[in-house]
Order: sequence, then structure tokens, then C-alpha cells
Amino acid sequence: MSEKLYIIKIGGNIIDDDSKLSSFLQSFAQVPGKKILVHGGGKLATRMAEQLNIPQQLVDGRRITDAETLKIVTMVYAGYINKNIVAQLQAHQCPAIGITGADGNAILAHKRIHPSIDYGFAGDIDAVHTAFFQLLLELGLAIVAAPITHDQQGQLLNTNADTIAQEIAKALSHDYETHLVYSFEKSGVLLDANDDTTVIPSINPSSYQQLKEEKKIFAGMIPKLDNAFTALQSGVSRVIIGKAEELTELINGTKGTSLTNEQ
Amino acid sequence: MSEKLYIIKIGGNIIDDDSKLSSFLQSFAQVPGKKILVHGGGKLATRMAEQLNIPQQLVDGRRITDAETLKIVTMVYAGYINKNIVAQLQAHQCPAIGITGADGNAILAHKRIHPSIDYGFAGDIDAVHTAFFQLLLELGLAIVAAPITHDQQGQLLNTNADTIAQEIAKALSHDYETHLVYSFEKSGVLLDANDDTTVIPSINPSSYQQLKEEKKIFAGMIPKLDNAFTALQSGVSRVIIGKAEELTELINGTKGTSLTNEQ
Repeated sequence: MSEKLYIIKIGGNIIDDDSKLSSFLQSFAQVPGKKILVHGGGKLATRMAEQLNIPQQLVDGRRITDAETLKIVTMVYAGYINKNIVAQLQAHQCPAIGITGADGNAILAHKRIHPSIDYGFAGDIDAVHTAFFQLLLELGLAIVAAPITHDQQGQLLNTNADTIAQEIAKALSHDYETHLVYSFEKSGVLLDANDDTTVIPSINPSSYQQLKEEKKIFAGMIPKLDNAFTALQSGVSRVIIGKAEELTELINGTKGTSLTNEQ
Repeated sequence: MSEKLYIIKIGGNIIDDDSKLSSFLQSFAQVPGKKILVHGGGKLATRMAEQLNIPQQLVDGRRITDAETLKIVTMVYAGYINKNIVAQLQAHQCPAIGITGADGNAILAHKRIHPSIDYGFAGDIDAVHTAFFQLLLELGLAIVAAPITHDQQGQLLNTNADTIAQEIAKALSHDYETHLVYSFEKSGVLLDANDDTTVIPSINPSSYQQLKEEKKIFAGMIPKLDNAFTALQSGVSRVIIGKAEELTELINGTKGTSLTNEQ
């Protein structure tokens, strides 16, 4: 049996709230064993772009990363957010290191290719350099990953944090028993999207099929869950979905939704 | 004989000039063996503060790091500058990792204490965590250090890059033969501050004494040189002062001023 590794993704709603972030980091510091935190962006990058009068371009609802926007997300994600998280973890006696995909060539990506839309400096992942992650984890460091990758030609790229968490979990599942935690606003996958008490505690491929057929799952959750089951098919042991404020309970299995391949 | 380690500090004049920086990084990638790059800030942080209407306070000519200024320097130094340098080094096949003092608890500092001036979030260094630097260097990584430290209580601090380079060089001189390179605008220590052809090739403590007595050294250089000789007394093997554009020549000893304790 290989050692457990937790890959925990936190979203903007936690990053934007100092007291929520601080209490989350306290719980993260207490997660036993090897762990990786992947953080998204939050509203600070958008506010910074507004203050600097850099217009944000959206195409089909997706943000275009032009050169000025890349500069801002590199500053905010890899600088301000990443280093403040690391400093706070150190204060909780959790040895940590902050990285982007450029550091140690951790995550290699290429500029997104699309037949009609130029997404700018958006990066799609080609490879996760697992040896580098393993070396840092073996040193006893928690890894804090910012959603910035590179193309090994000197270009930084903006990459979706959910995707980064999933690709890291998949790549490291050869060496560890990987548990991927997605934290978001709700308490888990809900039977009634408006009722936080209707969390489905566990879903496997056959119950997922049934829930979809019975249209019991909110349509907006389906791409997220499809991705989670793809990760499980690629070697990830468990995907947990729930509230960042309940991280301890998500880890010990008393809250949130746990997705596995077990029948 | 211990292995050589180069600690190379580059200043703002290189960071502000894309083509100079790019050519410097190409030379840095070719420096043989173990190496650390310490970078300062450049004008981007000042420009960013102006654009965001954050007034810069100066007391006795020294910048005060208030909370908003700390946010900007963390974004610009640890995010934008640090990660772009790392990405460029990777493109030159130089495996690299970017850090601040918070990462791996690399550099511990405290908020500057002064009887009458509140410098804000300026950090004075207490300790360099040499084991962490050694581990990264032994992995074959060039370390790129941003001038941001932390107090292990969750607070990031702004710390002078010259001081960081010197403290790293001193701390690591127990384990390596450390060579500290300070790059600046001029070709070395000059006999005539206005004539770049008057570089003094080498200075030792007794010739330094003599040059000072004969008032042959520009007064502005004296604090820099005093610091360099203090570093030499603390175990650093050699301090080299010269132009970043001439890094290869500074390393092989054909340009710049070399300071040693040898008589």
C-alpha cells in the first residue's frame, strides 16, 4: 500500500476572505502526512486590473489572458497570494514551499490552440514533473502551487487551478495513494441545489449514472463530476467535494461527498 | 577543499531592461556548478505604486514599507520578477527554483526596530536556513531569491537584496567555498568614479586601508566595500564587484574588482 497524499484545491471564495483563509490554513496545517495545496485566484486580480485600467476581455464567458493580464495574475497568484499562504503555514509550524509550474520545471504547458479564439497566454498542461514534487514532499514540505505554468521556452502561462490539482493528483497516483479534495461554496454534491442539508455522502460510477438518469444532480455540477470520475479512472483513489471551512471533516470522511470507483 | 558556490546579486538597472536581463540570464545559465541569484526590485514596484495611487513615504531618504507597499513589492518581486527569471532560466536549460525567505523557512527576519523611525514592514535578518539551500542546490537547482523574508509569525517582510546576498554567502561559507558577486552599473571599483577604465583589479585589507587613506576611493563606495570586507572576515572566500553585462568575465576573473582577505 502506498502512502497517502492529499491534493487540496481552494477556490476564490476562501482566498478573498482573510478570516476564512486563516482558519482554513490552520486546518490544512493539521492534515497529517504529505499534502499539496492548489490555490485559485480570487477577486484581487480583477480588482487590480480595474485599478490599473486594464480591460478584461471575455470571449464566450471565458477570460482572455493578454500580456497585461498575465502580468497581473503572475503578480497576484504567484506573488501575493502564494507567499502569504506560505508565510501563514510556517506560522502554524507547517513547513511549506510555494511554487509555480516554472519552478523546478514542475508543470509544463503549451499556449492554448483553438481554431477560432485566441485565449492569449492560457496554458494547457502537457506534463507534471513528478520527481520534483516527490523530492519536495520527501523533504517534509507541504507544496503550495499557484495556477501559473510555463512552456520551457521562457513563457509563463495562466492555467486553471482545478485542472492543475487534477493533473498533479493523476500524475502522482503512480507513487502515492492520492486523495483529491475540491473545496467550493457548498457542503458537497446536493440532491437539492438550494438545500445544503441534502449532501450525497458518496457516489460511485453506477450511482452517478442513476443520479444523472433521474436528473437528481444539478446540471452545473455535471462537468465537475465528469472530470472527477475521469481522475478516478486515471489512478486517483478518491475525490472529495465540499466546503473548505469543513476541511478536517472532509479529510476524515464525516462531511462532503466522496467519489470513488468502488462499486 | 569545499565545492565552489556563486551567489550573484543583480540590481534594478538590469531588471528594468528586458534585453540586458535576458542576456544576463543567458550568462548566468552558463556559470558552472552551484549558484544562487539574488535579485532586487527595479522600477516596476515604484511605477505600480504610482499607478495605484499609493504614496511612497521616504524618511531620511529611506523608503517606508507600509502595508500597501509590502503588498506591491511581494507581487512584483516574488511574483512577476522572480517567476519570469525562473521561466527564462528554464528556457536556457538551467534548472531553477524561485524562493522568498518564507519558502522552506529559508530566511528568518524580524520587523526592524528603530528608536524613532517606524520603517513599517522592513525586515532585518536573524537566520539563514542553510540546510534548505543545500538541499535545493544538491538537487542541481539554481536558486533565484526574491528580497522578501518572513518572521515565522505569518508576516512577510521587505529586505534589502544586497544584505540577503551577503547573509546567504556568509551562512553557506561553512559548507561551500562562497564567491559573492555584486553587479552594479560600473565596471568595478574605480580610481576615478567618472572613468570606467580605471578599475582596480583586486583589493585586499591592506591595500583597501591605503586606498582609503589616500582618498582614492569614491566615498559612496566605502559602505559597500566595508560590508564586503566584513563578509570576507565571516568566511566568504571572494567578493567580486562589476557589471552584470560582464558576468562571464567577472566569474573567470578577467574583469571587475576582486576583494579577498589574502595579503
